Amino acid sequence: MSPRLCVIPGDGIGQEVVPVAVAVLQRLLPDLTLVEAEAGWECFQRHGVAVPEVTLQAMRNCGAGLFGAVSSPSHQVPGYRSAILTLRQQLGLNVNLRPVRSWPQVSPKVGIDLLILRENSEGLYSGREHWQEEGVAIAERVISRTASQRLAECAAQVAAQRQARRITLVHKANVLPLTCGLFRDTCRAHLEAQGWRDVVDERLVDVAALQLVAQPETFDLIVTSNLFGDILSDLACHWSGGLGLAPSLNWGNGLALAEPVHGSAPDIVGSGRANPLAAILSIALLLRHHWQREDLAERLERAVADFLREEWRDDLAGDTTRVVSEGVLARIG
Amino acid sequence: MSPRLCVIPGDGIGQEVVPVAVAVLQRLLPDLTLVEAEAGWECFQRHGVAVPEVTLQAMRNCGAGLFGAVSSPSHQVPGYRSAILTLRQQLGLNVNLRPVRSWPQVSPKVGIDLLILRENSEGLYSGREHWQEEGVAIAERVISRTASQRLAECAAQVAAQRQARRITLVHKANVLPLTCGLFRDTCRAHLEAQGWRDVVDERLVDVAALQLVAQPETFDLIVTSNLFGDILSDLACHWSGGLGLAPSLNWGNGLALAEPVHGSAPDIVGSGRANPLAAILSIALLLRHHWQREDLAERLERAVADFLREEWRDDLAGDTTRVVSEGVLARIG
Ligand SMILES: CC(C)[C@H](C(=O)O)[C@@H](O)C(=O)O
Ligand SMILES: CC(C)[C@H](C(=O)O)[C@@H](O)C(=O)O
Repeated sequence: MSPRLCVIPGDGIGQEVVPVAVAVLQRLLPDLTLVEAEAGWECFQRHGVAVPEVTLQAMRNCGAGLFGAVSSPSHQVPGYRSAILTLRQQLGLNVNLRPVRSWPQVSPKVGIDLLILRENSEGLYSGREHWQEEGVAIAERVISRTASQRLAECAAQVAAQRQARRITLVHKANVLPLTCGLFRDTCRAHLEAQGWRDVVDERLVDVAALQLVAQPETFDLIVTSNLFGDILSDLACHWSGGLGLAPSLNWGNGLALAEPVHGSAPDIVGSGRANPLAAILSIALLLRHHWQREDLAERLERAVADFLREEWRDDLAGDTTRVVSEGVLARIG
Repeated sequence: MSPRLCVIPGDGIGQEVVPVAVAVLQRLLPDLTLVEAEAGWECFQRHGVAVPEVTLQAMRNCGAGLFGAVSSPSHQVPGYRSAILTLRQQLGLNVNLRPVRSWPQVSPKVGIDLLILRENSEGLYSGREHWQEEGVAIAERVISRTASQRLAECAAQVAAQRQARRITLVHKANVLPLTCGLFRDTCRAHLEAQGWRDVVDERLVDVAALQLVAQPETFDLIVTSNLFGDILSDLACHWSGGLGLAPSLNWGNGLALAEPVHGSAPDIVGSGRANPLAAILSIALLLRHHWQREDLAERLERAVADFLREEWRDDLAGDTTRVVSEGVLARIG
């Protein structure tokens, strides 16, 4: 069956970077079928729902998708929840892959190549908050053996794929012995059973954060819970060159939704300054992990590296979207 | 009344760095009275309790204390909880002050001078974890208006003291609208009412983590909840020169407990490699914030800066504890 991509530009610059990434993918997979779908804050304002049921169906039918970005109002709006959270949960996208690597010119350091595997469905993202009494609010951090096990299975798979020399479980079990203990022990048991005993290591989240700044090159595969992964992956993407270079893949349940980590950046919409590289690199993750096309993923990443080496300038300003788009397309051939 | 210090060396290198910091303080406050007290993992193994009641009483009597470090077993031990957590909670030390600044020679960047104010009693440190069912564990993140208000009051005080040009509230209200919303709104309301309207700003914790790596010099006063503060302060201390240079002050209820952020480092106990600077700099925080002796705090920090500039070498190895101790004492005069 020919590959299909559910295209969900979302809000703000999502609508500017997604078309570029789609054009790149069309070059690599000429028989690609596109299915457009809506989600996000604009969608909510139009239809009263941030992720319409037809969008979920489109994703399920396609198997693969590309999500742009989502705006969120700074204060709570009744009935509204960030579209990407709904997509992750409704579609059972239990794992989030966030690679961080050095690129020519834009990265502050060479030799970084790590991958953060983030649990993507529970933890503090459970959506379970309530008032205990007036003035005291509770959020429930939910950790299940099932979700931890699914993450560990994905970790074992990815570890094999990249021949991991180190797998670091990141937690805070000295303060959260029950939840982090369950997470750590489940992941460790599975990884050890799969033959990674000598490679598995662990770090407290505070220590991991410091080491990701001080010695990022010592990490390879990092496996962690939802919010820790959110924080550590933003921090770590500094080494790629910032959010403009940070791709991700929401994964699980046979589905894969690529997503640049950056937001909708309302302040630069329409200025031509949006950098489509994070969206383009997210496509490489779809190729590698969903369509099992390592060859095409590498071809795409090589095109990006060549473009950055040969053509990137820090002062592209309002030409960024166009120059990146043309530069990468030209190098894919 | 003459000043009193409750001295709690704790475990590991706590026992090596605390005496140095105490000697420094004795030079600055010659009429200081010392009260020794026990706490920690060794104490637990000896007495079956990590923080004996007499230690809590000693702290209450003294008003000020210095805690060294605590070891924790890597797996849960029935009845044991990290001594520092017990001290914070039992003594009502609701706020944790964690300054990060550039020092000569040891810091990777000049011009950093920021302070992280961390809520120190609740959030995910509530100690409330339970099994929802077999295989599903829950931790409760507790945010109260009372504790957030106390933190905000301390923030307003510290902001005035350092004439803050920016106050950044760090939260994750896009995912945790109730708990982070309560935290953010309480802090903001108080700070605005105290005249800091034009100075208060906010960031999502993931974005803050990235910016603390990419542009640490843009921060001044950061105000955040317990675990976010734990992660961000470890990360940020990279800019001081790492955990060896990271002091902190647990504060509240009229009491103040100074604490180097580093751990008990069992691997270097007895080797002479323990760096007492974090403990010494924690003493400066006691002088500044508890005893209101800005003059002595500055004298101490100047002595540290002079020592680092004139005598620090990266290869002190087994001479570290001694050289730092002699070097700082000599410069205090
Ligand atoms: C937009 C937000 C809800 C999301 C998250 O917290 O997961 C984002 O920060 C991310 O990392 O994808
Ligand atoms: C030892 C540990 C419980 C503690 C914490 O998490 O608060 C430490 O990391 C700190 O930052 O003081």
